[in-house]
Amino acid sequence: MTATKECIVSGMRPTGPLHLGHHFGVLANWLDLQEKHDCLFFVADWHALTTEYADPKKVKGFVPGLVLDWVAAGLDPDKCVIFQQSQVKEHAELHLLLSMLTPVGWLERNPTYKDVATELAGQKDLATYGFLGYPVLMAADIILYRSTAVPVGHDQLPHLELTREIARRFNFLNCPEDKPFFPEPKALLTEEAKLPGLDGRKMSKSYGNSIALGEPLENIAPKIKTMLTDKNRLRRTDPGDPAVCNLYPYHKLLTAPEKCAEIREGCTTASFGCVDCKKALMESLTAFLTPIHERRRALEADPERLWHILEQGNAKARARAAESMDAIRKLLNFDF
Amino acid sequence: MTATKECIVSGMRPTGPLHLGHHFGVLANWLDLQEKHDCLFFVADWHALTTEYADPKKVKGFVPGLVLDWVAAGLDPDKCVIFQQSQVKEHAELHLLLSMLTPVGWLERNPTYKDVATELAGQKDLATYGFLGYPVLMAADIILYRSTAVPVGHDQLPHLELTREIARRFNFLNCPEDKPFFPEPKALLTEEAKLPGLDGRKMSKSYGNSIALGEPLENIAPKIKTMLTDKNRLRRTDPGDPAVCNLYPYHKLLTAPEKCAEIREGCTTASFGCVDCKKALMESLTAFLTPIHERRRALEADPERLWHILEQGNAKARARAAESMDAIRKLLNFDF
Ligand code: SF4
Ligand code: SF4
Repeated sequence: MTATKECIVSGMRPTGPLHLGHHFGVLANWLDLQEKHDCLFFVADWHALTTEYADPKKVKGFVPGLVLDWVAAGLDPDKCVIFQQSQVKEHAELHLLLSMLTPVGWLERNPTYKDVATELAGQKDLATYGFLGYPVLMAADIILYRSTAVPVGHDQLPHLELTREIARRFNFLNCPEDKPFFPEPKALLTEEAKLPGLDGRKMSKSYGNSIALGEPLENIAPKIKTMLTDKNRLRRTDPGDPAVCNLYPYHKLLTAPEKCAEIREGCTTASFGCVDCKKALMESLTAFLTPIHERRRALEADPERLWHILEQGNAKARARAAESMDAIRKLLNFDF
Repeated sequence: MTATKECIVSGMRPTGPLHLGHHFGVLANWLDLQEKHDCLFFVADWHALTTEYADPKKVKGFVPGLVLDWVAAGLDPDKCVIFQQSQVKEHAELHLLLSMLTPVGWLERNPTYKDVATELAGQKDLATYGFLGYPVLMAADIILYRSTAVPVGHDQLPHLELTREIARRFNFLNCPEDKPFFPEPKALLTEEAKLPGLDGRKMSKSYGNSIALGEPLENIAPKIKTMLTDKNRLRRTDPGDPAVCNLYPYHKLLTAPEKCAEIREGCTTASFGCVDCKKALMESLTAFLTPIHERRRALEADPERLWHILEQGNAKARARAAESMDAIRKLLNFDF
């Protein structure tokens, strides 16, 4: 990353409590970004409807919980803008505008859509217009703030490329060549999920292999105890191999580097047992989660605070979005 | 039509001056409807972008002209709501919401889209996402006001059917069976273009066979003089046949029924010549257009008035749209 201050926009769907995988996959990166850049993080509740349209009522319940997870993890409303997509009408407005200039072929070629369309062949009614247009809404979310960079995983790269193409097309159609209105936001590639689930698969609530950020420590301890380690290390006296152990990636993220070196050394020489290793991990987890849980309890004691954070963030986002839409309308001669 | 007061929504794209064909195809019907129903008529400027996205700047120039044509023709801002689509953000919002629940297959089956997609085969990038979703935006425009009826021509019936299906799907997903939120608006079928162009083809500015509503009478007179009549009536003394004459349909719409009967009689018995017939038509046109031109001149003398009419209409539409969106958000648990 350069020293330039970027404008960064990123969102998450409100679909349930965040776990450690989300933290190290996305949130840790956000915490880093908020220190250096102009960041807007949003609750993507419109996006949640692309999959939850048949039961929109359940989305609301997840909204404060998501903000709670964020702020407890360290996202600071004084350092970044935390807001809710559906509360800033300009997202819908720019989405409609961009829909007019986005070739439908671009969207049909989108790998995610193709996968689902293939899966649903024969029952194609399940693929909705909004689902096909997901990348248009994502483009609107991002370029509305004239964002210059977006943190994405590899799987999101085709969507970001579409955002860039849509921005380029808007500029091409509406701006002098040397004065593009929208920057083409660049990808800040985040590494792939660094933290596997408790069973070694991708961490996911639906696999039952996750540790939620808000989970009580006494709930976590037995989960760690029953984790599989290096399956070739049958006896305490056998040397182990951290490279094939489910537990070790947790240490890499949660335990100090010197301590990690010790563990590696102890494991491969059989001077350090898995039981001790798990105890050490529980200590690291406790150190990591305690401040998060404390902030969490403080927020839970004052439930209005979360809505207040959102309201303030919504107001800030709205002001910026309105300014942007005014400029866009001027450019298009749609300022009446 | 029944005596029930319907809520009626209808729009026109701002693409240029209206002509007599528009008047007798659409406007005359609107004038009738405004007397009996709760009507909202809107300038469909977002819709104009489905075709004009490459040159959005030119749309603005047509907006006041369209309102001028409407009000000069007799649309009365005290009897109906006259507003501009892009100035009521709730249209974009409901469009986004409905996009989530509209199967893309419904849109691909839409005959208008199929025609264009076939035409563009091989250069499919020209079909935009917004063009595919045209019926979703149309549905949003209509049901946002919980409209109960929509004036449509036969060619628009498939689009209205989609509006009804989308309304039904929303109700099915979000409402108890006995308490649907959106009415399914019924079609008020308008007859097909009753007034042919000067050359007998469909009246269209691009064919050069039209008479604009704002056209000076001295400009119209020579057009009428050179109109072809019954081509078998070579001499003044030959009897003519109004049924195959280009001119007679104009009399049917513009001239009093008794006078029409006289003309028919005189024509078929050769007691009345085409020159006189054209003179009579010019009289009818003068009687018809004079009050329209007078209102037009008054409006043109006070250009602020048109914007004022739109502003007032926009405010009324916004209030109703906001109330509607509030109720929709409540229903979806999206009221934060
Ligand atoms: S000591 Fe630690 S790293 Fe080594 S196998 Fe056991 S749990 Fe894994
Ligand atoms: S008299 Fe009139 S209706 Fe008869 S052919 Fe001439 S123009 Fe047509």
